[in-house]
Parts: sequence; C-alpha cells; structure tokens
Amino acid sequence: MQHTARSQAAPAPRTGVWLVGARGSVATTAVAGAAALAAGLAAPTGCVTESPDFADAGLTPFAGLVFGGHDVVATPLVERAAALVRDGVLPAGLAEAVRPALEAAEREVRDGSASAGEPQYTTARRLAADITAFRERHGLDRVVVVNVSSTEPLPAPDPAFLSLPELDKALAASGTLLPASSLYAYAAFHAGCAFVNFTPSTGAALPALEELAHLRGVPHAGRDGKTGETLVKSALAPMFTQRALRLRSWSGTNLLGGGDGATLADPAAARSKTESKQRSLEDTVGHPVEGHVHIDNVPEMGEWKTAWDHISFEGFLGVRMSLQFTWQGCDSALAAPLVLDLVRLAALAHTRGESGALPALGFFFKDPAASTEHNLTLQYGTLTRWAAGAPVREAAEQPAREVAR
Amino acid sequence: MQHTARSQAAPAPRTGVWLVGARGSVATTAVAGAAALAAGLAAPTGCVTESPDFADAGLTPFAGLVFGGHDVVATPLVERAAALVRDGVLPAGLAEAVRPALEAAEREVRDGSASAGEPQYTTARRLAADITAFRERHGLDRVVVVNVSSTEPLPAPDPAFLSLPELDKALAASGTLLPASSLYAYAAFHAGCAFVNFTPSTGAALPALEELAHLRGVPHAGRDGKTGETLVKSALAPMFTQRALRLRSWSGTNLLGGGDGATLADPAAARSKTESKQRSLEDTVGHPVEGHVHIDNVPEMGEWKTAWDHISFEGFLGVRMSLQFTWQGCDSALAAPLVLDLVRLAALAHTRGESGALPALGFFFKDPAASTEHNLTLQYGTLTRWAAGAPVREAAEQPAREVAR
Amino acid sequence: MQHTARSQAAPAPRTGVWLVGARGSVATTAVAGAAALAAGLAAPTGCVTESPDFADAGLTPFAGLVFGGHDVVATPLVERAAALVRDGVLPAGLAEAVRPALEAAEREVRDGSASAGEPQYTTARRLAADITAFRERHGLDRVVVVNVSSTEPLPAPDPAFLSLPELDKALAASGTLLPASSLYAYAAFHAGCAFVNFTPSTGAALPALEELAHLRGVPHAGRDGKTGETLVKSALAPMFTQRALRLRSWSGTNLLGGGDGATLADPAAARSKTESKQRSLEDTVGHPVEGHVHIDNVPEMGEWKTAWDHISFEGFLGVRMSLQFTWQGCDSALAAPLVLDLVRLAALAHTRGESGALPALGFFFKDPAASTEHNLTLQYGTLTRWAAGAPVREAAEQPAREVAR
Amino acid sequence: MQHTARSQAAPAPRTGVWLVGARGSVATTAVAGAAALAAGLAAPTGCVTESPDFADAGLTPFAGLVFGGHDVVATPLVERAAALVRDGVLPAGLAEAVRPALEAAEREVRDGSASAGEPQYTTARRLAADITAFRERHGLDRVVVVNVSSTEPLPAPDPAFLSLPELDKALAASGTLLPASSLYAYAAFHAGCAFVNFTPSTGAALPALEELAHLRGVPHAGRDGKTGETLVKSALAPMFTQRALRLRSWSGTNLLGGGDGATLADPAAARSKTESKQRSLEDTVGHPVEGHVHIDNVPEMGEWKTAWDHISFEGFLGVRMSLQFTWQGCDSALAAPLVLDLVRLAALAHTRGESGALPALGFFFKDPAASTEHNLTLQYGTLTRWAAGAPVREAAEQPAREVAR
Repeated sequence: MQHTARSQAAPAPRTGVWLVGARGSVATTAVAGAAALAAGLAAPTGCVTESPDFADAGLTPFAGLVFGGHDVVATPLVERAAALVRDGVLPAGLAEAVRPALEAAEREVRDGSASAGEPQYTTARRLAADITAFRERHGLDRVVVVNVSSTEPLPAPDPAFLSLPELDKALAASGTLLPASSLYAYAAFHAGCAFVNFTPSTGAALPALEELAHLRGVPHAGRDGKTGETLVKSALAPMFTQRALRLRSWSGTNLLGGGDGATLADPAAARSKTESKQRSLEDTVGHPVEGHVHIDNVPEMGEWKTAWDHISFEGFLGVRMSLQFTWQGCDSALAAPLVLDLVRLAALAHTRGESGALPALGFFFKDPAASTEHNLTLQYGTLTRWAAGAPVREAAEQPAREVAR
Repeated sequence: MQHTARSQAAPAPRTGVWLVGARGSVATTAVAGAAALAAGLAAPTGCVTESPDFADAGLTPFAGLVFGGHDVVATPLVERAAALVRDGVLPAGLAEAVRPALEAAEREVRDGSASAGEPQYTTARRLAADITAFRERHGLDRVVVVNVSSTEPLPAPDPAFLSLPELDKALAASGTLLPASSLYAYAAFHAGCAFVNFTPSTGAALPALEELAHLRGVPHAGRDGKTGETLVKSALAPMFTQRALRLRSWSGTNLLGGGDGATLADPAAARSKTESKQRSLEDTVGHPVEGHVHIDNVPEMGEWKTAWDHISFEGFLGVRMSLQFTWQGCDSALAAPLVLDLVRLAALAHTRGESGALPALGFFFKDPAASTEHNLTLQYGTLTRWAAGAPVREAAEQPAREVAR
Repeated sequence: MQHTARSQAAPAPRTGVWLVGARGSVATTAVAGAAALAAGLAAPTGCVTESPDFADAGLTPFAGLVFGGHDVVATPLVERAAALVRDGVLPAGLAEAVRPALEAAEREVRDGSASAGEPQYTTARRLAADITAFRERHGLDRVVVVNVSSTEPLPAPDPAFLSLPELDKALAASGTLLPASSLYAYAAFHAGCAFVNFTPSTGAALPALEELAHLRGVPHAGRDGKTGETLVKSALAPMFTQRALRLRSWSGTNLLGGGDGATLADPAAARSKTESKQRSLEDTVGHPVEGHVHIDNVPEMGEWKTAWDHISFEGFLGVRMSLQFTWQGCDSALAAPLVLDLVRLAALAHTRGESGALPALGFFFKDPAASTEHNLTLQYGTLTRWAAGAPVREAAEQPAREVAR
Repeated sequence: MQHTARSQAAPAPRTGVWLVGARGSVATTAVAGAAALAAGLAAPTGCVTESPDFADAGLTPFAGLVFGGHDVVATPLVERAAALVRDGVLPAGLAEAVRPALEAAEREVRDGSASAGEPQYTTARRLAADITAFRERHGLDRVVVVNVSSTEPLPAPDPAFLSLPELDKALAASGTLLPASSLYAYAAFHAGCAFVNFTPSTGAALPALEELAHLRGVPHAGRDGKTGETLVKSALAPMFTQRALRLRSWSGTNLLGGGDGATLADPAAARSKTESKQRSLEDTVGHPVEGHVHIDNVPEMGEWKTAWDHISFEGFLGVRMSLQFTWQGCDSALAAPLVLDLVRLAALAHTRGESGALPALGFFFKDPAASTEHNLTLQYGTLTRWAAGAPVREAAEQPAREVAR
C-alpha cells in the first residue's frame, strides 16, 4: 500500500515532548509508559492512536519520543515513580525496567519558576530558550509542549487578552498578567512548537494567543483531558437526546486524592473545572439541566478517583426514571496514554502545516477548542477522518456552532 | 419547503396497528399514549420520530393510527390501564381522558388462540383474515403487525425453517412447528402487512419467512426492543473501544416484575433474552468478554425494572478500573413510544416499497435484523439518513458483517 | 397481664400535637397518616411504636391525637395534600378519605409570624397562649409541640443562652436573639408542653432552655430526625468498628428537592445539617475520618431524595476496600411516622414526670440530645427498655460519654 | 488487675492451627499475616480479638500460633504468596519478610487425599494421626482445626448422620458417605481438637458429629465466614425491622474470581451458599422476602469480589423506596484475620472446657451454629460478654429460637 511504502522509506520522525509539570504523576507515567511501549514491555492499552484507524497516518513511533520539561518542584521522576508503584499505578518490575528512561527525562527538566519582579515577557523568553535548546540538543524534528501541571484559577478578563500587540505590550511591563499555563503557551508558540493543554487552566484559549499561533504557524489543542466522569457523560448524554428522553437533572460528585484533589479544593480552581464539565452537558442536550457537580479532595484516595453521577429523566407520558453510574479510575493511568496520543497527533498537524486550534482533537477534551461537539462517537469519527488526511475544507463544513463559540 | 407542501396537499396516511398481545401493558400504554398525543394531552417525550430529524419523512400522524390486535387473555384494556395507573405508569387523569380510545381498541381485539389439533396453516389463515377484515373495516392505507406479547422459548432448529415451500408444506400438517411469534409473522406477511417483532422471540427471523416477506413485498423489523440495560450498553460499550481500554468483564443483573419478569423466569425464555444481550456486546468490542447476565423475576417490582451492570476494564500499563451503572426504568413507558415509532417507520418502508428485514431500524433493537452495528450513535445516523430518503444503494454498501449474519 | 388490664381500665389518653410548620409536607403527611391509621385505612408501616415492644407502654392511640399548629405560609393543608398526591407521597384515594381530618387541623393553625419590632418575650407569650387555648378548647391531657419547620442557620453564641435569668432578661428587650425554633421551645415550656425538635435547627439545645424545661417539669427530645443517609450510617458504621476495619474516608452527597432542598441550599443552614451528620460518624468510630458531605437542592426531585455514600476502608495488612450505598427515599413518608412516634413517646415521658432532654429517644435523631450513642441497635435497645419502664437509675448508668457532651 | 496479673504469670499458651486447605489463598494470607503481626510488621487491622474488649481473655498471642495442615494441591505456600502479591492482597515487602514462616508452615502440610477404595474410617484415622503428630512434634497446648478449603455440594440426607454409633458403623464400610469437610471434623474431634468450619460446607453440622464433640469434650464453630455481602446484610437488615419498614425484596449479585468463584460456579455448591445467605435474612426480618441471590464466577476478578444488593421496601402509607449497596472487597484479606480470631476463641473455649457448638461465635458466620441471631451488634455483645467469662447459664437464657434450630 502506498502509505506504508512511504512510511517505510522515510526515516521515522523524532518528536520532543516538553512537559510542563514534568515531575508530576501524569508526566512520570507518560515517560515510563512510552519507554515500556518502545521496549515492548507492555501492550498499548489506552493508546487511541495505536488503533488500526491510525496505522497509515505516519505518527511518531513511541521510540521516537524524547522527553524533557519544566517543573517547580524538586522531587525527581524516579522518586515519583516509586510512589506510583506504591499506589498501584505502575507495576514494580516495569518501574525498575524503565529507570534509565526516567533518569534521562530527569536530566532534561528545567526550573519553571519566574524570577521575582521580572516582566512576564522575560520569563517567557527564558522558557522558550529552554525548549529551543532541548530541540537542538537532541536534533528533534519538532517539539510538542504539553501542560500537565496543576489546575490554576481562571484569570480575570483583561483587554490585553484580545489582541497580540496589546498582549506583547502588557507582558513587557512588570506584574503578572497571564496565568502560568498561558505564559507557557506563549513561550511554546514563540519557540515554534505545538502546544497541548491537558488541564482545565486557560492555556492557549485567549484570542491573542490564537493570533500568535497562526502567526507562527503552529497548532494547539485543548483543553481539559476527558478521563473520567466527563468521558462517560459524553458517551451517555447523546443517548437521551437520540431517544427523545428529557433530562431533568444531572448531578455529580468526584472524589479525588493526589495533587489534583488538593489543587481543586481551592474553590477558584474547582470552578474552572466544574464550569467546563457542565458546559459540555448542556451543549449536548441543548437546554439547561438542574444539578450540581462537586470535586472533593479526599487525600487518602491517592491516585484514584471515584465519580458518582445521578441522572433523572422523564419518559413517555411524564414517567420519571433514573440512571446512576460510578466510575472508579486511576487518574494518571487514564491521562498518560492520551498525552502520548496528543503529542503524536499535534506533531502530525504541525508537519501538515496546520495552525491554531485543532477542532479534530475534540475527542480528547472536556472543553474542546473550536468545537462544541461532545458526542464521543461523532468526535471519534471526526478524529479518524482527520488523521486519515481528509481535506481541511471538510472541517470548514462543520455546523456553524462548531466555530461560533 | 417542497416536502411540507406535498405533505399538506396529500391526505395524511391512516395506518392500522395490529398488536399481538393487545391487552398487555405495552400495548395498553401505546394505545393510551397515541390517543393522548393525538389530543395534545401530553408531550411526545420518548418518541424518537417526533425529533426534527424526521419532520419531512411523511410519517403517519398519531391521529392517523387505528388500533386492534390479538390476545389470549381476557382482561380488557380499560382494566389494564387502571392497573397501570396504580403502578405509576399512566397519570390518573390521562387514563380517564383516553378511555374512549381504549374502548375502541378493545372492540378490535380478537382471540389469538389456536383451536386444538388444527394445522398451523389453518390458524394462520384465520389470524390473517382477522387482520384483513380490520384493514377493510377501517379503510386503512396499510396495517403494521407488532408483536408485544410475552417472550417465548427459542424453537429447536428445523429444516422447514430454511425454505418457504418446505415451511408451507410442514404447516399444512398437524402439530406445532412455528412458535406463535413466527406464526403471526407468517400471517402478517400473507395479509400483506409489515411486521415488527418487539420481543426477543423468533418472529420473522427465519430464512423461510424472509423469503415470504420478499415474495409479498412487505418489510419487517426486529428484534427485542432496546429499552434499558442494553440501551445503556450500546451507548457505553463503544467508549471502551474508542479509548482503546480493554474490557475484562461485563456482568449484569436485571430485576423485573410484571408479566415480563414472570415469563423470563422460565429458563428457556430467559436464555433467548440473555443470549441476545451478550451477542450485542461482543459484536461491539470485537472479542469475548467474561461475565453473566441474569434476569430475575421480582413480582413486587410491578412495571418497574432495575438493572445493575458491573464493567471491569484495563487501562494503561495494565491498571484495572471499573464502571458500574444502575438503570431504574418503567418498562411499558420505555417500550410504548418505540412501538409507535416503529409502526410509523415500518409503514414508511412499506409505502416506499421496501421488503424483507430493515437494517436501518437497528437503532431500536438489541438484536437488530440484518445488522451487527450496535453503536447507538452510528445506528441513529443510519436511521435518520434512511428516513430522509437516502438511496437503498447506500444500505448495500454497509460493511460485509452487516449482512453476513 | 397487669399492664394490659390497667390500660384497658383507664380511658385512653388524648394528646394534642402542635406542629410548628403545620402546613408543610411532613406535617400534612403526619395529619393525613394519623387519620388513616385511626380509621384503619392503612397499616402502621414505618411507625416504630406500633411494634409489639411498645404494646404495654400505654401510648396514646392514633385516634387520640388532635392536631393544630403554627405556620407562616398560607397554603392550606388540603392543597398541600393534593401536591403530595401528585408527587407520589399520598395515595389519591386516601387523601380524599382523610380530607375532614385535614380540614379540622387547618382550623387549628395559627399565624406564627412575629410582629415587627416586638420583643421576643411578647411573641413567645402569644405563641404559648395559642397552644394553651388549643389544649383547653379540646380538653386535652397534654400537648406535644413538634418543630417540623424549615431548617434555620445556627445562631452565633451568646452569653444569654447559658442561663435562664439572662435569657429572660434579653428576650424582654427588643431585637431578635433566639432563632425561631428556640423561641418555640421557650413558648412550649412556658405552656407546660413537651417539645420535640425534628429539624437540625437549635430548638431546645441551649443550657438556658434545659434549665427552663426542668423548672417547668417538661421533657424534650431532638434533634434532626434520622430519615435517610444518617439512618443507614448509624446501622453501618458500627460494623466497621466491630470488625476492626479502619475507616479511611466517608463521603456523601444528598440530592433533595422540595422545601428542604431549597432551605439547605442556604450555606449557613446546610452547615448546621452537615456538621451534625459528620459528628455522629466520628462519635461512632472514635476518630476523625476524611470526606465531605454535600446537600444539593435539585428542585425537580420534589419530595424525593437520593443519597450516595462512598466509604473507603482498610483491612488486613493494609488492603483497601470500599462500600457504596444509594438511598432513594421520600422525605415526608419517612419523617411523618417518626413524628407520630415521638409525640406518643414524649407524651409518655411527660406523664411519667420526666423533664429535660430525653436520652432514651436518641434512636430517632442524627444529633441526639444528652447521648453520644449512634449505634442504631443499641439505641433501639435503650428505647424499648425505657418504654417498658426501666428505672431512671439505669439511664444514669450510661457510659460517661453519654452525658458529658 | 487480677486477669492481667494472671496472664503475666502464666506462660503464654501455644496453639496449633491445622488448616484444611493449607495452601489456599485464605490459609496463606493467615499464615503470612500472623507472622507479620507477631513480628510487629503490620497493625492488627481486621482482627476482632485485638480490640480492648478481649484484652483480658487470655487469648493465644500471635507469636504463639504454629501452622500446619492438609491440602490436595501441590503449589507451595511461597508460590501462592507470590500470586497474592501480584493480585494486591499481600504487600511485596511483607511477603518477602515472612518467607521463613511460610516455609515453616509448608513443611507441616500433609497430603489430604483419600486412598482409592479405603473406608472413610481409615482415612479419618490417618488424618487424625497427622494432626496428633503435629501437636506432639511442636509440644502444643492444643490444636484448632480450621476448614478453609473449597466449598462442597451439600450431601443428600442419610440416617447415619443422626447418631454417632450409626455413623461409626457406616464409615467402617467402603464408599463415600461424609463430605470431606465433615470427615475432617470427625478426625479433628477424634484427635481431641476444636474445629472451625469457615466455609458453607457441612462440616460439623450433623447430629452425629455434635454427639462426638460432646463425647470428646471439644468445641466447634461455624459455618460460612461472614466476609462481605452477608456482613453488610447483618448490619442493615435490623434497621428495617427497628424502623418498622417492610422489606419487599432483597436481591443480590456476587461477582467472584479466584478459587471460590470457580467452585461456586458448580450449581450444587452454590446452592449451599445461597441458601445460607437467604436464611439469615429471613431469620432477621421474620418473614419471607422476594428476591434472588446470584454467585457468579468471573475469573478475571482474581481475589477480589464485588457484591451489589438491591433492597426494595415500603414505608408510611405504602410509599415504595429502595436502598442499594456495592461492596468491593478482597476475600482473603477479609477472611484471614477472622480465621486467626476464631482459632484464638475456639482455643479459649477448649481451655474452658466447653464442648459442642459455640453459639457465642455466631458473630463470625452467615449460618451460625446453635443460634438464629443475625443482628451484628447483638452478636458482638454476646461475643464480648462470653469472652469476658460471662457464666454459661446466661447463654442458656437466650431466647428459645436460639437453640431450637
């Protein structure tokens, strides 16, 4: 077959993965997992892009991924991996086997802290320089910057967010304007890198940053990886619409331990997360629905999370019925393979010359950029057609609501 | 708009609904509901065909449906409706308001019992004559025969099931060859009527009956309406495949009261139902999955059913996670609007000259005829495209597995 | 048997039930239910005091209960009952049959509002006069005042709460010192009536009011009727202690509609309720436990509530396990029979000359007065022994923690 | 305190633990756990007898337990322990630390197979000789034989079960009369040992064996350790009775992997287990209750089990409500500490000269010998009073139903 022939002829691409939050659980699991997959020590369970639907897309092989990143905490990846073994996320033998890969990534982690009082523009230049140096040091075809750091509060609106010249001007002054996730996006774009925001933080979701991405010709994807309750929601909510059953209420409680639980206990950060959860539901069913979403910090749960959702709906002649589900998952094990998927797909988009938000990657996100489609099956169809090289024009033919956000 | 103009010009079609099991809970709820909808007493919640996606298909309006049927029990529909009021299925005021419609349907119910010792061919002729007389008495454009009677055991295989001439010959002899649901399909086809099998019984799912349907130029749809656990399954199972999560086991327990619970307590009948449930799951994920499905008769639950499913799956690096759901629904309220939908759609297919199994109606069934697609969203897409008049050729382009069953 | 002989000889006692919140759902269900039980129209399901364990206690028969009360809303009980029929709490026929009883209670409802600017002492005198007039008008042996009104915020601490003379003095001044529930307790005690606080509001739980109860020789019981999540908690939590399993976290989410849901959406009121829920758990297991309790207002749920609890615990060699439960109940149907039970038992205590908090009635409450025992079975044993007339001295021999609160 | 003084003065007792099924998961976890507790490597979570309520009872310390047993499989304990580490039951470090204890127990395991054609009396003598030799070899004060082998089918009734002379005579003939669990009880009693039946198999629950236990002056306890669904049931069921709520149905599904799941997939064995589960519920609430209990073999679940129970009940004025729970536990981790508890308590009873069935140990069992009390709190009270040395006469004052089985 033609595609296969070509991919055999060309050398496999080598892609850098620059992790913001490089010493966290998700990053550590991603580094360990990529090494295990490259070495054939584990099956690619949970890796969407290993499905036959992506076989001809020319994605970077796992062995072609090189890891580095920024962090502000000092615990090295090897120690984090040991904690993940204790918590049942990494098998003990595997963590030992991939130790060299963890150490290699550790050597490529740089301090992501801002110096006191320096303008954010200065910080961004330093961050971009770290990324560029990493790319050159390893002779990489390209680098994808992925935000897997802790969730931030949403910033207050600011006119400088709306235009790139205004933003540049504001960043040159002292003071903190951009949240860290957005400053990393700014730095990534300046370094000519694709950017993926796996968290509910702001990231690249500002008009000025969209402008910069187009200017630099780099793509970005986000935001808020769909790894649990919202994943199930996006599979279940269309059922009610398709069956003409009227949703009365949808209530959810999420019990989280680990770093994510602690961060989201900060009400401002939690609001950014719960807002994106509710938005996707109402987008899907087309009307407001009663109910609340809670995110509780329960430290003893460690890396594990449990979500309970209660859905009340009305059927024929007004009869009331209900559906409940309980999801018990391991956050890092759910997120890490998606991080690898997103790196491979963002690198593909970059290779193809796409820039700005990538609506075709909405499948992975609670709050997908440039798309309001939340039906998981329709998202999967869009993703696989895009990966197979369907013309850009087709994406432009999406329903108006997809781009009107 | 052109379609609207045409449908305004032509007189609205009048379609007979011949219910096998006409005095049961599903039938009674369907008759009461159709009258309530025709009179504007209730919103069409649960009626798929009232979605805007079907607005231009020229479906029979609710006011154009005329009800009759066969049954072997004597309790009149008005009494059954009173029991449904007590059980919370029908609102008290509504049951009173639609009493004339229930009485009208009651007058069109005929005894469906076979005479002792008569050949099944003789029985079938009498059943067909009842249906034909109903159509002529009311001057109907066409009649759709719908099986909503109790679930039967699956019959033992028989060579006469494989060819129409052999079947005709065998039915002329004395003895019971066909299960009742199949004899009704045989009678319906001979009467020139479309047939819908809402139950897990055999119905038209025999090669000889498929042959007869094509010969008589009538369509049929089935089997086993998807009203609870399997509906949720068909929304959830694709999620695991799309996310490359490996299903380890899927176990389910269904607690049912009412007539359906009692019937399915008969192990042979239950087997026909549990087999179709497991088949749809394995078709979706593409490999065998551990687990058992139970259907328990719990008489005190009346019309209500509760299903609990436990799903164990494996994610990245072998981490085991789980999802559970509990569905609490009212069987008749879930089934009745689908019966109305299926009547309207089968009548549409009949009008269009389609014959044999209708794969486009797989959306409604646990064990869809002529289709192995169980992804609810894909089924919905196929259904709406078909209803909008997409050419038959497109149906022929379905993947091979769709027709190879 | 001697007791039976005596209770046959003496005329059955007649007890007034003065409901604070007399037109609410709980009150309406209690009035309707008492009438239905007196007339033999319903079985006493949910009435603890109809168990054989209470047969010889000489309790007021249901036919001997006479209802009245205060409220600040105007919707009459008959209209409230109609709403309860629509919501599935009262059977339609029964509501019709007990209409005279609802109307009789309605005639005995007085306005509970305070006049603008009047000292609370003046208000209390008027409330007490209403109760006294009710007792005299009907020639009742005694009256039990029961608070079933909406949950209030907890008041800020005040020195006047600690001694009766100080409280009397403060109430004579203008301004609002006592929350309404406590003012009703004050009025009830002055009218020589027993008082039951079925809500999580403060009620009689102030040292000054305890002093008044002893002074007037009247008993009281409270607080916060155990009707759902906490009932199950008090049955389950001892299991972990008895089996030496270590609770790691206990998290709960309560979805409520109706009046209670709306009131508890006020964070201050909700805090009073969630605090009492957590206290009972930690009292039972003897150490702090992680987890949060949410009370969500979901108006569409009407009279129904759903609670989901997730319990994480540790077993042998540190293995982590979990238990989840979902409780789906009807608030008024759970509360109303307990209101009747508490009236009968408080009247019994009054007859026996007991005064102050009644620890033996802790079985009914989330936050039992004068007791920290939360094991439901031990509470039941204490209750039945007390009802059978076990000497007061035995109550004094309770473990120290029972009285040391 | 006097007791403490005595227990300090006397040498700590040394008790042999003879495990029937010595190489199974429960046995391996018990051996590993006892060693860990004796060495201070783990807290005694899950060990009931480490509660302060048992501090003065003079129980064998964990360091005083010596393990041996019979088995018919060859996989050594050390290998089984490795499998338990992989399945998350034993921490990896701990399994390594207690390896000498596992090897010591392994050396004391004897083949429990019967020789082809030999009379069961001959087999029993050989089994008893193994036990006696173990006791003498280690100079033990006494030995408790514990059945933790796979569940057997219930035997057909036989007159020889009813009297010891008849049983002795029948065993001397060739053929298989007693199920293995009962033959082990017979051998244990002949060897002068206490016997504990932790499984739902027959064990000592035959009149002829009760006769033998009294004759030999040895106690026994059983049957069917309460480690999951039934434990929760025995905590929850009394709540309904105490609150006068009427149970309508109680349905349960148990998903098990491991050896227990496979054994119980045999319908005859499962029946013995599900029968004992239902019996305890109906004993508690005092009337038959609708519903079914399923035990499913789901091999992928390994040592873990999940139980879902659905409870439907009726409250005031006939309102229907429900409670569901999901229990997710690790079978061996739940059973092993109870095995240690039972050994210590059975040894205590033996020391005290008690013989025959021990009703005070009903707390531990689904189907308690010589007791129909299933309320967990009442069982706990009975247990602790007995352990504290309450006179035997008190046990005789139990309600008649306790002994009338």
